Amino acid sequence: MQQHIDIAKFTEITPTAPIAVNAHGGRAKCLQRLIRLGMPVPDTVALSFATVRDIASGQLPDINALIGQFGENPLLSVRPSSQDPDWGGPGAILNIGMTDERHAALSKTLGAPAADALYRRFIQSYAVEVAHLDPDSFDTEDIGELLDAYEYEMDEPFPQEPERQLTDVLRSMARAWDGTSARLLRQAKGAPADAGLGLVVQEMALGVGPGESGSGVIQFVDAATGQPQITGRYLSQSQGRDAVTGESGAIYLTRDPRGPSLEDLCPDIFAALIEHGKMCRSRLREEMQVEFTIQAGALSILDAVRLPRLARANVAIAVALAEDGIISQDEAVLRVEPRALPELLHQQVDPRHRRDVVANGIAASPGAATGRIVFSSRAAQQSAAREEPCILVRRETSPEDIRGMHAAIGVLTERGGMTSHAAVIARGLGLPCVVGASTMRLNRRDKTLTAMDGRIFREGDIITLDGTRGEALSGEAPLLEPAIDGAFQTLLGWADAARDIGVRANADTPAEARTARAFAAEGIGLCRTEHMFFDEQRLTVMREMIFADSAGERAAVLERLLPMQRADFIALFEIMRGQPVCIRLLDPPLHEFLPSGREGIRDLAAALNLPIHDVTRRIEALSEFNPMLGMRGVRLGIAIPEIYDMQARAIFEATVESSQDGAPVVPEIMIPLVSAKREVELVKARVDAVAAAVRVETGTDFTYSLGVMVETPRAALRADEIAQNAAFLSFGTNDLTQMAYGLSRDDAGRFMGSYVQQGVFAEDPFHRLDIDGVGELLTIGAERGRHGRPDIVLSICGEHAGDPDSIAFCRAVGFTYVSCSPFRVPVARLAAGRLAIEDRNARNNPA
Amino acid sequence: MQQHIDIAKFTEITPTAPIAVNAHGGRAKCLQRLIRLGMPVPDTVALSFATVRDIASGQLPDINALIGQFGENPLLSVRPSSQDPDWGGPGAILNIGMTDERHAALSKTLGAPAADALYRRFIQSYAVEVAHLDPDSFDTEDIGELLDAYEYEMDEPFPQEPERQLTDVLRSMARAWDGTSARLLRQAKGAPADAGLGLVVQEMALGVGPGESGSGVIQFVDAATGQPQITGRYLSQSQGRDAVTGESGAIYLTRDPRGPSLEDLCPDIFAALIEHGKMCRSRLREEMQVEFTIQAGALSILDAVRLPRLARANVAIAVALAEDGIISQDEAVLRVEPRALPELLHQQVDPRHRRDVVANGIAASPGAATGRIVFSSRAAQQSAAREEPCILVRRETSPEDIRGMHAAIGVLTERGGMTSHAAVIARGLGLPCVVGASTMRLNRRDKTLTAMDGRIFREGDIITLDGTRGEALSGEAPLLEPAIDGAFQTLLGWADAARDIGVRANADTPAEARTARAFAAEGIGLCRTEHMFFDEQRLTVMREMIFADSAGERAAVLERLLPMQRADFIALFEIMRGQPVCIRLLDPPLHEFLPSGREGIRDLAAALNLPIHDVTRRIEALSEFNPMLGMRGVRLGIAIPEIYDMQARAIFEATVESSQDGAPVVPEIMIPLVSAKREVELVKARVDAVAAAVRVETGTDFTYSLGVMVETPRAALRADEIAQNAAFLSFGTNDLTQMAYGLSRDDAGRFMGSYVQQGVFAEDPFHRLDIDGVGELLTIGAERGRHGRPDIVLSICGEHAGDPDSIAFCRAVGFTYVSCSPFRVPVARLAAGRLAIEDRNARNNPA
Repeated sequence: MQQHIDIAKFTEITPTAPIAVNAHGGRAKCLQRLIRLGMPVPDTVALSFATVRDIASGQLPDINALIGQFGENPLLSVRPSSQDPDWGGPGAILNIGMTDERHAALSKTLGAPAADALYRRFIQSYAVEVAHLDPDSFDTEDIGELLDAYEYEMDEPFPQEPERQLTDVLRSMARAWDGTSARLLRQAKGAPADAGLGLVVQEMALGVGPGESGSGVIQFVDAATGQPQITGRYLSQSQGRDAVTGESGAIYLTRDPRGPSLEDLCPDIFAALIEHGKMCRSRLREEMQVEFTIQAGALSILDAVRLPRLARANVAIAVALAEDGIISQDEAVLRVEPRALPELLHQQVDPRHRRDVVANGIAASPGAATGRIVFSSRAAQQSAAREEPCILVRRETSPEDIRGMHAAIGVLTERGGMTSHAAVIARGLGLPCVVGASTMRLNRRDKTLTAMDGRIFREGDIITLDGTRGEALSGEAPLLEPAIDGAFQTLLGWADAARDIGVRANADTPAEARTARAFAAEGIGLCRTEHMFFDEQRLTVMREMIFADSAGERAAVLERLLPMQRADFIALFEIMRGQPVCIRLLDPPLHEFLPSGREGIRDLAAALNLPIHDVTRRIEALSEFNPMLGMRGVRLGIAIPEIYDMQARAIFEATVESSQDGAPVVPEIMIPLVSAKREVELVKARVDAVAAAVRVETGTDFTYSLGVMVETPRAALRADEIAQNAAFLSFGTNDLTQMAYGLSRDDAGRFMGSYVQQGVFAEDPFHRLDIDGVGELLTIGAERGRHGRPDIVLSICGEHAGDPDSIAFCRAVGFTYVSCSPFRVPVARLAAGRLAIEDRNARNNPA
Repeated sequence: MQQHIDIAKFTEITPTAPIAVNAHGGRAKCLQRLIRLGMPVPDTVALSFATVRDIASGQLPDINALIGQFGENPLLSVRPSSQDPDWGGPGAILNIGMTDERHAALSKTLGAPAADALYRRFIQSYAVEVAHLDPDSFDTEDIGELLDAYEYEMDEPFPQEPERQLTDVLRSMARAWDGTSARLLRQAKGAPADAGLGLVVQEMALGVGPGESGSGVIQFVDAATGQPQITGRYLSQSQGRDAVTGESGAIYLTRDPRGPSLEDLCPDIFAALIEHGKMCRSRLREEMQVEFTIQAGALSILDAVRLPRLARANVAIAVALAEDGIISQDEAVLRVEPRALPELLHQQVDPRHRRDVVANGIAASPGAATGRIVFSSRAAQQSAAREEPCILVRRETSPEDIRGMHAAIGVLTERGGMTSHAAVIARGLGLPCVVGASTMRLNRRDKTLTAMDGRIFREGDIITLDGTRGEALSGEAPLLEPAIDGAFQTLLGWADAARDIGVRANADTPAEARTARAFAAEGIGLCRTEHMFFDEQRLTVMREMIFADSAGERAAVLERLLPMQRADFIALFEIMRGQPVCIRLLDPPLHEFLPSGREGIRDLAAALNLPIHDVTRRIEALSEFNPMLGMRGVRLGIAIPEIYDMQARAIFEATVESSQDGAPVVPEIMIPLVSAKREVELVKARVDAVAAAVRVETGTDFTYSLGVMVETPRAALRADEIAQNAAFLSFGTNDLTQMAYGLSRDDAGRFMGSYVQQGVFAEDPFHRLDIDGVGELLTIGAERGRHGRPDIVLSICGEHAGDPDSIAFCRAVGFTYVSCSPFRVPVARLAAGRLAIEDRNARNNPA
């Protein structure tokens, strides 16, 4: 090879050449690393992003000089080298330099079939990728016919100058990168608008011809589990990725009873590959997938890429690399994206499976389950009694459906949003759930579900519910099991070691509390007491309370609820022993506890021994135009103070009882929907009075703290004065987002998709915390809260709390902890650990 | 009289004595002024607030010295003198000093009847007011019986020492001031918690005895109209206010065909009174009511108070005083409270009338009307056809009721809030309206309305609706007519001369625009286009649009709405010629245009030729959990851009047409419910494109401005970037309040009363702008908006815009104008003028 190259335009990849990922792309850099490790990589030249940009705009490099970098009459390949391999790029083109003359010469040295294969592949690629001709016209094996077809379509013979061929290939690939669809595709994967493309030009290792020649792909761990296992294929007389793209004749790599293997065929080459693999892992510090070619018995390594893998495999690989001392534990933590974790926590539909979608909706509770369709809670219970797994399909659910939801293994509803009854309860039960599936049609009378495409499903038909993606699939789809032990636990332990912000869970029931504990949440940050009343027996008592005619009657009914609530809190305190439990006083409007359907109203009238007319009237009187903005939260607590009195008493009595055998429990009581200081004063006065009474009655002292859930913009603005009566402020970002935007989460579904698509909102603010708007309210609230009470505890308990970006924001604002749903706890722990590590790294290596 | 008085305890009122309103009270000060004017006021001594406070706590002044201030054996009266006469005080006590001995002596000089009258009055007052005995025991004319009754009740004879009598009276009056009910009463009238009471002790002018003796009250203008007219009564042989408290024998003051008069009886005294009245008016600069006594033909002026009057009279009096050069125009403006103006704008139930309340609700649209009850729109139309005024009484109204509302003269609904359909439409139509009258019960089947007290009203029964107070009254109540000409216009003109902030009106219809123009609004600040679609014919087209299956079909339907909208805007532009008109693009969720009842759905299905099932389904699909936070405003504009396209076209075509004959119209287009910058960019791009198209099609150039309605907290926080595409920001404080508090105005009614009562909110934030919270959002939005665009026009168009305190806030923040409902325009003009005058006065007279 010549030594004096045009360094500005292209760079020969040598161990010391100035190759950089952000100038030449990931593939060029990776090839340099392989070369440094002494692997048999054919000669390769890298074209920088700038060069490729020039090519796209017509300024070509010196093609003769470029070709001159290689040996006499080289055959070349060109491959894309974008900064991040995930951003894609045009397909590789092989065998550039094949001409009639070279074909004739190679027919003599390699034999006609090999020479034909080389020329055929090049003509086909060139015609379709470079000249943009119809692939169907080039669907033949015959070289003469291919050349004729080209000349017929293009009115000129197939180009016979290698310089012209290479020029055309480079220009075509440079321009393809600028095409709209390529641009949209990579931007969807996070590429910046000005992402560059590099190209690598490599001398061909042929893979065809005499002696053992062929190509293959090898990887050293299982892409689904991350466990060590050599997989891949080898195909004699082939090039590129032919061995893995379904061409017949491909063989296994390791010795295999099912057929021949490379290990049998070329034991030395196989051994060399294993050696190369080990070196890749230890020196490139990653599990790679390696593309290799054998030419007349000689091994070439053409390329290596980070092994594509499922999330669970990525965790196992990172942990194994760290345990083998190849990377640090911090590095392992940084290698796992928190967003990928949920895949590990629930059953999932195998992403490699083809999906037959019956209905689309809102992914309300993650996980997947396969079962028979049932259209009523009654049918769900019968199905459960027969031990037949079933999916409950309803228009929407109401408290009457609780039993059916317990019996089902998944819930699908036609209506509703993220905070609908079905969604909330399913998340609580850990059931996969899809709501608002308005693309399907339910006919309750005929008991049929009509899919988007018109197919009709009946009770008993099997579907698979994918609550992670928000889809229902026809039939039984293959499911992946959760992967939350071993490597998962190890990794989170490492993240915890670095973490500097607390992670609690939102948990309402003992089952959720146990999940929270299992995921090592550091306490409960939000226990929504209302869900405790949806149990059938309590619901009846709750309704009696709502229909009570006087404060006295109401107090009598609440007296019956007291022991139930006390038992609830005792259960939570026992499960969370030693950790804080923050209990939010009753929040939802009372009408949520009343039936809606005619049947429910009839039952209620009978249960209360009241005329149906009276029941209907009361329900109508309680109904609201905008329940989200109505008589709920602390407003209820002030209008009917007996309710909060009862809840406070239950909490304190449970505190006394749970503290008898073990460490004292210190409950936290949170007031919802506050918008004015006086609301807090009024509730605090009564709660303090109840505490004093319980202390006297039980002769036991205990402590507790009382705080405020900041859910209204006004509470954030007035945090200074509100903090004067609150030991803690916990920001409920769900409601805060609803109110900052004037946008109901339950109603936003109708247009949120198109809003995000059109870039009106960069992201759905209910999924990703809106830093600009809601975030400012949090910042204001935190600053003013601290001003009002310097030792105030600040936290966030909306669903954003499990989102890594929101956690970064909360760390920056100086919150004490985040509290998210139990299944988001691992995500939050990992995200928080990563942030702390990144900060430390940035401090140690300032830019 | 002696000269050396204890100045610290009591002060003789002389022209130069140190008497101050804030030390001795208004009555003492007024008496000093009368004395200065040389009027025949009997000797009077003032006791300061401090002295009265001392008396209440047991430290009495030297009573002998006090009595010594007057002549030999004086008879005295004691009257309250609080700082503001409106704050009340204990009743006057006359004839102190009457004893058995004095009674015997006076029987000789004045005659027994006069002496009896004096003693009787004193014993009765003393027994009831000072000794707190049962009035029934003193219901006799006989002096002996009265004295016996006293002795029987008190186990001691009636006190015979004038010193003791005066001491007891002073102590009793001082203590009465501290009583709880007196305190609550005056605090309700705005008195501070530490308001003091002064007392005046005056030598009696007797009014009984030989010669012409008696007492009376005179005023010089009509208390209801403010027009010059001498009214009052005189009663011979009487004291105090006997002449006007219904005692028989009282005569007119001026010569009157109905009977004898003081003018006939004592022409000289009558002439003196007229002279005194003139002097009061010119020197005290106020219309006074004067209390006088004639003793043996000699006139005494005992007291004068600012004439109690209706709001309309107050305006006339202030204007007349200014026109007569007695006070300045600024002073006249400051004398009329803006809050009193609404009484002048509509018919009102005469406040002097006893009210028989049938139902209580929300005062949704002011004014009063008397008519027959009808329970359906159909009945309302039939009644109107018979020219019988009717009040439409409904559970709630829907678009189907529009015709009925047009036919009725008042609307009463059982449900709904300030923004319910009934309320909004009634305000638009200028009809008195009461909504949310949940204390009544409607039975639609029996066509009955059951009042709070169980009385049943039927169709055809007459009621009076008081939309100003939110009440329905039984039968026909006397109504006062509006008073909006003459003095009213003059006063507002003076306010305008001082005013330094613009006042526009919110007006949706030509009728409202005409009202706005009549009240001299400086343009329309908010034209809500949605109300234009509730007309029956358009509603049908609107519904077709909602049911359109494709964008093409939708565009075709909108094509039919275009000429109607264009005509709407032409009408508005013509009425408002020369003034700006700010048109808000469609805001409400589409389901507001759909019927709700079964009958409406059937009609709609027939009109659209669709199966009922499809119609029901579509209505259900469009229904929302929280419509306030749903698919409305700019969200609708972005999801279905054809609607805003049509509206923009209608606006521009109307602009071109209206500009043809006269000054060019410069419309303002406002985008509702913005929460993100990109929303504005998207709408702006389309509106600009429509403008360009209309310019080309019509060959006419025109200008317009595009702005944003800031209704979400996020829009306020992001005003900087939003302002970059907005020529103006108009703050919609209704929605901003709803979102800052997380509180729906329609649902707040259930607890707002008790919230305000318990002091949770100092005021209903929908009535009075919440300066602390919502106000901060306005301040932030204004600052950031100006930062984003220094020449941005800022305004407020929520219903707070008509509230004087909110206007003060908007002036302070530097808004260009406020825009309120047409009938609030006079209030806003007056309030803004007063603020400017007060500022100027404060600058000229710094404290």
